[in-house]
Amino acid sequence: MSGHFSLEDLDERVENEHPQGGAMTGSDNDAVAIGIDFGTLSGRVVVASVADGRELASAEHVYEHGAIEEALPGSGVRLGRSWALQSPKDWVDVLRNAVPAALAAAGVSADQVVGVATDFTACTILPTTADGTPLCELDDLKDRPHAWPKLWKHHAAQGQADRINAVAAERGESWLPRYGGKISSEWAYAKGLQLLEEDREVYDRAERWIEAADWIVWQLCGEETRNSCTAGYKGIVQDGERPSREYLAALNPDFADFNAKMEHPLLPLGDKAGELTAQAAEWTGLNAGTVIAAGNVDAHVTAASAKAVGPGQMVAIMGTSTCHVVNGENLTEAPGMCGVVRDGITKGLWGYEAGQSGVGDIFAWFTKNGVPGEYTAAADERGISIHQYLTELAEGQAVGQHGLVALDWHSGNRSVLVDHDLHGVILGLGLQTKPEDIYRALVEATAFGTRMIVETLVKAGVPIEEFVAAGGLLKNKWLMQTYSDVLRMPITVLTSQQGPALGSAIHAAVAAGAYPDIVAAAEAMGKVERNAYVPDEARADAYDELYAVYEELHDHFGRGGSRALHTLHKIATEATK
Amino acid sequence: MSGHFSLEDLDERVENEHPQGGAMTGSDNDAVAIGIDFGTLSGRVVVASVADGRELASAEHVYEHGAIEEALPGSGVRLGRSWALQSPKDWVDVLRNAVPAALAAAGVSADQVVGVATDFTACTILPTTADGTPLCELDDLKDRPHAWPKLWKHHAAQGQADRINAVAAERGESWLPRYGGKISSEWAYAKGLQLLEEDREVYDRAERWIEAADWIVWQLCGEETRNSCTAGYKGIVQDGERPSREYLAALNPDFADFNAKMEHPLLPLGDKAGELTAQAAEWTGLNAGTVIAAGNVDAHVTAASAKAVGPGQMVAIMGTSTCHVVNGENLTEAPGMCGVVRDGITKGLWGYEAGQSGVGDIFAWFTKNGVPGEYTAAADERGISIHQYLTELAEGQAVGQHGLVALDWHSGNRSVLVDHDLHGVILGLGLQTKPEDIYRALVEATAFGTRMIVETLVKAGVPIEEFVAAGGLLKNKWLMQTYSDVLRMPITVLTSQQGPALGSAIHAAVAAGAYPDIVAAAEAMGKVERNAYVPDEARADAYDELYAVYEELHDHFGRGGSRALHTLHKIATEATK
Repeated sequence: MSGHFSLEDLDERVENEHPQGGAMTGSDNDAVAIGIDFGTLSGRVVVASVADGRELASAEHVYEHGAIEEALPGSGVRLGRSWALQSPKDWVDVLRNAVPAALAAAGVSADQVVGVATDFTACTILPTTADGTPLCELDDLKDRPHAWPKLWKHHAAQGQADRINAVAAERGESWLPRYGGKISSEWAYAKGLQLLEEDREVYDRAERWIEAADWIVWQLCGEETRNSCTAGYKGIVQDGERPSREYLAALNPDFADFNAKMEHPLLPLGDKAGELTAQAAEWTGLNAGTVIAAGNVDAHVTAASAKAVGPGQMVAIMGTSTCHVVNGENLTEAPGMCGVVRDGITKGLWGYEAGQSGVGDIFAWFTKNGVPGEYTAAADERGISIHQYLTELAEGQAVGQHGLVALDWHSGNRSVLVDHDLHGVILGLGLQTKPEDIYRALVEATAFGTRMIVETLVKAGVPIEEFVAAGGLLKNKWLMQTYSDVLRMPITVLTSQQGPALGSAIHAAVAAGAYPDIVAAAEAMGKVERNAYVPDEARADAYDELYAVYEELHDHFGRGGSRALHTLHKIATEATK
Repeated sequence: MSGHFSLEDLDERVENEHPQGGAMTGSDNDAVAIGIDFGTLSGRVVVASVADGRELASAEHVYEHGAIEEALPGSGVRLGRSWALQSPKDWVDVLRNAVPAALAAAGVSADQVVGVATDFTACTILPTTADGTPLCELDDLKDRPHAWPKLWKHHAAQGQADRINAVAAERGESWLPRYGGKISSEWAYAKGLQLLEEDREVYDRAERWIEAADWIVWQLCGEETRNSCTAGYKGIVQDGERPSREYLAALNPDFADFNAKMEHPLLPLGDKAGELTAQAAEWTGLNAGTVIAAGNVDAHVTAASAKAVGPGQMVAIMGTSTCHVVNGENLTEAPGMCGVVRDGITKGLWGYEAGQSGVGDIFAWFTKNGVPGEYTAAADERGISIHQYLTELAEGQAVGQHGLVALDWHSGNRSVLVDHDLHGVILGLGLQTKPEDIYRALVEATAFGTRMIVETLVKAGVPIEEFVAAGGLLKNKWLMQTYSDVLRMPITVLTSQQGPALGSAIHAAVAAGAYPDIVAAAEAMGKVERNAYVPDEARADAYDELYAVYEELHDHFGRGGSRALHTLHKIATEATK
């Protein structure tokens, strides 16, 4: 999964909430739980009432290095096409800065805190020594790109992913259908195989290969743990097993023992991982010994704050990228989904995950690279964001008036096709095409992408009865209405501005024993507005026509009718070597 | 054909040339010829020495109303999608302003002028009364869009063109293969049929339906004439005949007598049409009785200034759009060409015409709508155009490094596919895509479009031995080099900055009897630099790979593999109704 919010979103949120924290100062002595959400560009902390989920305060710490996509900090070593890294120091800085800030803003004492839980982007993964030291923090390795944590959106391991899939299909590996028939280049095995094949020394020195979600818990409680969610969705653990030694050897003989770098008992979500160390207590201002919950993933943890931990309730966390999670009562192998994991979201149910690798970041790319100066000047003059300005220009159009359909693959395709060599397409451009037309087409393309995922799941036998939206894109009401029209479904919205962090706080409350299970805790502490958007029949009919075009292009360029996008990616990759 | 120059190009040219005129003042008593080129946004006048083509001076008049694409002047009546009109007053203003200005700048007297010739965009066509009064100048019709001249790039008659083609194919009309199997929506019959079907009253009151190329000659010499070039290329005159009454009735019973609005003897290119009237002498400052040549078309007339009036010499006039003209010794029916006309360029040869409906205007659209403020600010700061700035950023890239291929159909496809319902496409967009990448891909797309035309002609048996470039895009050396690399051919360039106007001056000299024929006049008065660009082998190889992708997309979206672009156009057209 991904970070969901742009910096711009965050700035607004922080401004809005500091006063809320101040207002509660000294007035509330109830137990609180702390949730910490590690995103793509920043970490956010929420202090929530255990009784009813009220958010007493929140704080944010923006990573110094953000997503590292061009060159390594310090050495300036250039990264290749499609690389994306992060710095572990940035994550620890969230503990040192945002936790004390949130506590102070909430006006609660460390004694009131019953537990802490975290969630992370995934698969964000790093090589460490046996004691958990990141290899990128070793002097002799800090200039080696492969020693750094690979961020979820590192897409340079597609070649490895292709072989992982081909060899698994050939050998009929039983776990493959659980991932829709395709393992993503974003996940633990593809990134690990790339490491082996491109930097053998770093691979050999990586005693542990660990999700950042588990690494941060290690920093908090001093013990290595592994959570069932990332192990299942990103680490190919199915029915308690990882891919076999024989299979790994077939990928590369030197990869045969890769599992040893990850092997560890798994901890269910909401269970206690350990207690806060003295070191971490010093960083955070919390009491040593505070309960720390098992690691979790930003999307999956949001199902708790969205009160959507039951079957058929799809939660879409819509931000930089979008992640979809939904529980099913039965196991079905849906083509091209990210994965189905028993107990992956809620104990006792099958958790399905799907995703769109580019959503908000496509809009951000467009506003940065494709909008003329008059537009940004006009938005500035009115004191609104360029997104709001383009939305105002676009929202009054009749459906299809712009003559455009786009494919939302600027960052590849994560679900249904599972292919990060795919790229974005736009059809129907004319001399009359205006920036707001393209903006609208891009928003619609992401809605079509969501519809493609929903329809694929439903066809595979996973009922979707409710669509709950969360994340930074919620603030664009026209966009949300467009999704409702395109999906032809009402949309329920998460009303907390801190969905993942609140979800973590809910898990912290469960780990601390305040609730018997996540269902009870979510019911008490989650926050939604049911059916905030309902589809307009006429627009939904018109969108059916455009969706048919999207579907045709999706299948033509994505399922082998044309190799054009792959050819272009190959030419570009070779030309930039 | 089209106007080839952007306003920006023109401004520079005029500045450069006024001093040239001044320097000659009073120093040259030789005979001169005047050429007047009527473009899309302005008219340009050249005063040239009859002896050697030296350009003594030039002047430009920018049309007050330019291309009328959104609303009628005066009444503000809104135009539909794909409409484009012009104002006849703007054309007369060129005679009144630019001719006297050029004469004054050249320092020549009216007595030195042996003849005047004109060239025009085509098919730019208007309805008039029997005496040549444009219907849009009648008080009761001036608010009716159909009473105005339809500019070459008026593309709202595609529905009529489709029927013209379907009925002709069904009936096996012998003229159809002469136009590559498809009549364009830009031409006389499609625009005329649209007029009939959308504004019957204007159609009935149109006693004449006349190319602007012939209308302007009528204003100069007081007599209606019709030139063989527009009659052949745009008016379906083949072997001396127009489409039959039966065929026209099959399109629409009320269209049966349409030919009567155009019927008139044809005048060969370079022949005398008449002599300057007193009224026109007053406008221009020339002597009444000065020889006026037959009307001509901007592209075709440029073959003379480019010394490319022999077989196998393709002239590409590259500007807003691109027009390709080349003579062949034999008649061949090449698929999707604009037309083949006996004596259409040079007497005794078969003149082939092809075109790309959007080239420079695609780049202009992009710089206006798709380039961020920092870019335009940086260009302004350095005092260079945004085109130069983007070129500097793009020109150093390895071929294919940007990962993009575009289809240059933002204004439809004029040749090979002959379908103005097609629109632009871009493939391979990613979050790393920069504006200069898209700019480069658009330039390359237009080069691929040219290669598609050249290859189609050669395959059909029309040899292309030399590629001569003219027009406003010449000033971008990187673009020209890219064309050479993509075509794998050397490029000869026209060195006159006023290709069409000089070509007209050459025809004026022939009409006045100063030369026996156009071949002799072109040899004496034309101006080229042979092989100014030669292809780079390595880049040409790399472009072959990208061209293969272009070709695949071209055929998929253009030849029926996908109806997506047509569906989008249909939806958009209905949504804007």
